[in-house]
Amino acid sequence: MQRLNSASGDFAARFRALVEAGRGEGGDVSAAVRTIIEDVRQRGDAAIAELTARFDGFDPAGELRIPTGRIDAALKRVDKDLLAAMELAASRIRAFHEVQRPADHQQVDETGTRTGWRYSPIAAAGLYVPGGRAALFSSVLMNAIPAKVAGVEQLVMVTPTPGGEPNDEVLAAAKLAGVDTIYRIGGAQAVAALAFGTESVPAVDFIAGPGNAFVAEAKRQLYGRIGIDMVAGPSEILIVADSGADPAVLAADLLSQAEHDPTSQSILITDSPSLAQAVLAALPAAFDAISTAETARASWDANGAVIEIADLSEAPALIDALAPEHLLLAVRDPDAVFARVRHAGSVFLGYDTPEAIGDYLAGPNHVLPTGRRARFSSGLGTANFMKRTTFLGCGPEGFQALGPPAARLAEAEGLPAHALSITRRLDRGA
Amino acid sequence: MQRLNSASGDFAARFRALVEAGRGEGGDVSAAVRTIIEDVRQRGDAAIAELTARFDGFDPAGELRIPTGRIDAALKRVDKDLLAAMELAASRIRAFHEVQRPADHQQVDETGTRTGWRYSPIAAAGLYVPGGRAALFSSVLMNAIPAKVAGVEQLVMVTPTPGGEPNDEVLAAAKLAGVDTIYRIGGAQAVAALAFGTESVPAVDFIAGPGNAFVAEAKRQLYGRIGIDMVAGPSEILIVADSGADPAVLAADLLSQAEHDPTSQSILITDSPSLAQAVLAALPAAFDAISTAETARASWDANGAVIEIADLSEAPALIDALAPEHLLLAVRDPDAVFARVRHAGSVFLGYDTPEAIGDYLAGPNHVLPTGRRARFSSGLGTANFMKRTTFLGCGPEGFQALGPPAARLAEAEGLPAHALSITRRLDRGA
Repeated sequence: MQRLNSASGDFAARFRALVEAGRGEGGDVSAAVRTIIEDVRQRGDAAIAELTARFDGFDPAGELRIPTGRIDAALKRVDKDLLAAMELAASRIRAFHEVQRPADHQQVDETGTRTGWRYSPIAAAGLYVPGGRAALFSSVLMNAIPAKVAGVEQLVMVTPTPGGEPNDEVLAAAKLAGVDTIYRIGGAQAVAALAFGTESVPAVDFIAGPGNAFVAEAKRQLYGRIGIDMVAGPSEILIVADSGADPAVLAADLLSQAEHDPTSQSILITDSPSLAQAVLAALPAAFDAISTAETARASWDANGAVIEIADLSEAPALIDALAPEHLLLAVRDPDAVFARVRHAGSVFLGYDTPEAIGDYLAGPNHVLPTGRRARFSSGLGTANFMKRTTFLGCGPEGFQALGPPAARLAEAEGLPAHALSITRRLDRGA
Repeated sequence: MQRLNSASGDFAARFRALVEAGRGEGGDVSAAVRTIIEDVRQRGDAAIAELTARFDGFDPAGELRIPTGRIDAALKRVDKDLLAAMELAASRIRAFHEVQRPADHQQVDETGTRTGWRYSPIAAAGLYVPGGRAALFSSVLMNAIPAKVAGVEQLVMVTPTPGGEPNDEVLAAAKLAGVDTIYRIGGAQAVAALAFGTESVPAVDFIAGPGNAFVAEAKRQLYGRIGIDMVAGPSEILIVADSGADPAVLAADLLSQAEHDPTSQSILITDSPSLAQAVLAALPAAFDAISTAETARASWDANGAVIEIADLSEAPALIDALAPEHLLLAVRDPDAVFARVRHAGSVFLGYDTPEAIGDYLAGPNHVLPTGRRARFSSGLGTANFMKRTTFLGCGPEGFQALGPPAARLAEAEGLPAHALSITRRLDRGA
């Protein structure tokens, strides 16, 4: 953890170092991933079976797909109150993403020329869900529901199941979200299977969902052949707080990010030196209260920061430089600060809005740009699972008005067949 | 060129081969590109100068940036009628992309919980404009205008200038489109300069624009550090025509795609055997009429196809399988066919709508998904230069309603600090 003060002479340099510090997991896995992808492309299910035996410790033996009965049974086994919370989440996420569905458009200009666009859903999408320690059923909801709201007909989920046994909550979430089929495979091999298709696994057009370094690199290498949601990195929260915030609450907020992974980052910016001190004083009790303290402490020690500023008006520039995935504005007038912020994945407004509510069930998506990518990219939304087809229709009058200047431009670009396609229509009196 | 007939026994197999045929330029340039990127990252302008001397045959000698005076002079030298056509194009493209600007949204639910999103422009974007033989000033308009409509403040163009001399039309288009600065550099080294910044070239957040295999691979390798418009491949047109279409016109339409590059593809689908024959008979005269016949013939011979179908109702399934960049519906009722099409980059409706009008000045963007990527991606639009920040604001009532189920979900996912961030707020009576 480091402390910065915007009044210090070395602030600019230290802040820039903080902004530019990489928190990557290190290790170039690109060659290993390339080998796995090529193997799956050439040998299909046989390669999948071998890689699953090697990495997940079981032989899928032709049963790559999780049967419907197993999914229904999982849904029945999930605690009733947990299921109710999952259903509330699903319903709110669905409602929010329905509002996000992009609109079609058509316009006709003074020459009678029609232009516009039409959105249509991707036909088949894949969803990667990490397995292992954490059962991230919320990730299933956040990825699958937008796909289904968009109108994706074939939504194929893959998830590694160490030992072969899938997680009940993950299966239940998939069922609630409308996932069509689930395969118990993971890693770069699962991504490759979705991109190329195998005897058992259908090929899809688009792959979403988080994963480890192998999964992320596989998506990157296959981008172009298929669409992907984003290149994701370690997660982060930036909290801007004033003296009205509760230090014990902020300590929990900081650790709620830190507990994800040692590479996560939590930063507090405040104009109140006493609040900064109180939050630091509250951290030991917060660590003591959580079973994930080891991970949270590793993250906080390596990547945490507390930045004191003289006035809240300094905050927006610092926020934009960090372009955080999550921004919590625990201040009296959060909208005033938000109005001056430009680069952030998702913003949590006010003392009563912990990120966790947004992570699970408020409605907006929790799949967000990390590692300063909020400068140029957005969180996952309904439109990621759709594509836009533009169109143009010239009538005779529009053609007469637009054809000659278009032909002039084509000639100047040295593309005579382009010009010919226009002049021949002019010749025949179009 | 190959001919297919949907009534033939081998049609399914031959059509699938056509769909799956790669038209890549071959040769893996990834290692060479990786070396160039690393060189520019480490040595900045010095590396750029060496690479420019090697690839473009001149020493930029500290004058990487094209001076404003040179740009103004270019604008004055461009033919007046050509400039007028460029201005018409710029104005129509601008109007169309202004309509595309995505809307912000805010909603408040029954618990008083606010959710929504806000769009903001990317701050700095780079635009790659190919040099060499063709002076693609239309590419400048199609890439730069959406960026400026989106609100990008710093739009930086790079373009290789073999021998050091930039093209007047390209500079004029950049001026019309509002490009802020232009550098006479190209290749993977220009893309790397934009991604990392050098002593002379500012770093940007997003890079758009077409380029050769080196440029495309550089964008792909840097994707994630910066945003990119798309992974592009060879261009294509699919024409669906009925007996009402003019064969001589269609011959020009087919060649207007073929003249771009030997890897381009032109396909005609028709329900009229006599039209198919007449188009083939009209091709020699069309080749004779264009100075680009050599390229067009290479493309048509290698990648062209004529597909006869028994009835137009067969067309939509074939269109969706090909997912063409450009789809020309030269039929009596183009809207009826379009209504059944799902995967296409841009559609040109009716006998009087040559692709060339859309390529230059109708308004919709000509930067479109190629190589069947219309299955999952869209053409360039205003939103590519913006990003969406979602937000959430809970008041006390919304927090009381959503906090407990969110905490339940966090506990089930094994994330106790997430739950703690909620329960501590509940304890203090938020």
